[in-house]
Amino acid sequence: MIVSNIYSDIPDDLTHEVFEEIVRNGSLKLERIISKGHETPKDQWYDQDKDEWVILLKGSAGLVIEGEEEIVFLKPGDYVLLPAHLKHRVEWTDSEEETIWLAVHYQKQAG
Amino acid sequence: MIVSNIYSDIPDDLTHEVFEEIVRNGSLKLERIISKGHETPKDQWYDQDKDEWVILLKGSAGLVIEGEEEIVFLKPGDYVLLPAHLKHRVEWTDSEEETIWLAVHYQKQAG
Repeated sequence: MIVSNIYSDIPDDLTHEVFEEIVRNGSLKLERIISKGHETPKDQWYDQDKDEWVILLKGSAGLVIEGEEEIVFLKPGDYVLLPAHLKHRVEWTDSEEETIWLAVHYQKQAG
Repeated sequence: MIVSNIYSDIPDDLTHEVFEEIVRNGSLKLERIISKGHETPKDQWYDQDKDEWVILLKGSAGLVIEGEEEIVFLKPGDYVLLPAHLKHRVEWTDSEEETIWLAVHYQKQAG
């Protein structure tokens, strides 16, 4: 039995945000994302083909949803469901410590 | 945007282990499990039809895999992949504080 830890093995180089696949199975993907002061470029939005369920496990972040004025503050344990094509961007992530996310991407099924 | 927190809204009554569905989509199920001193009955094993990826987020637990002698100690952030029909049982969970798990159940796809 291999036990891994979501808070461990953080790469030294966090110049760029890190995306690591944990599980891939058909259209399902579990991913660890590590941010440190990263943000989505000002004029860009995530516009994804799949639904995404994402939980922030460490650090903090501000999430912007297109058409919503308020920035959604996320602290450890907070999770949201981002349906496919709901445009969103990460306004900020903690610059002092790593922000660790677990994202579950999946293709929405009828019913 | 609805933000929920995986550590919040813990039921008062934890006489029985609590299983709460967070997302269901086709064969995919995300589930929060709350344990407090619970264990799988001594003569029982989980023998599941689907693969399960599970992460322990709070508390601690001991996991037993059929055929392995050592009890796998799980602390916050630890995760394991339990393929379908890999028999396993929870030997113990923390009796002082809640143990919170996030489980992702999914049907293994070819390829």
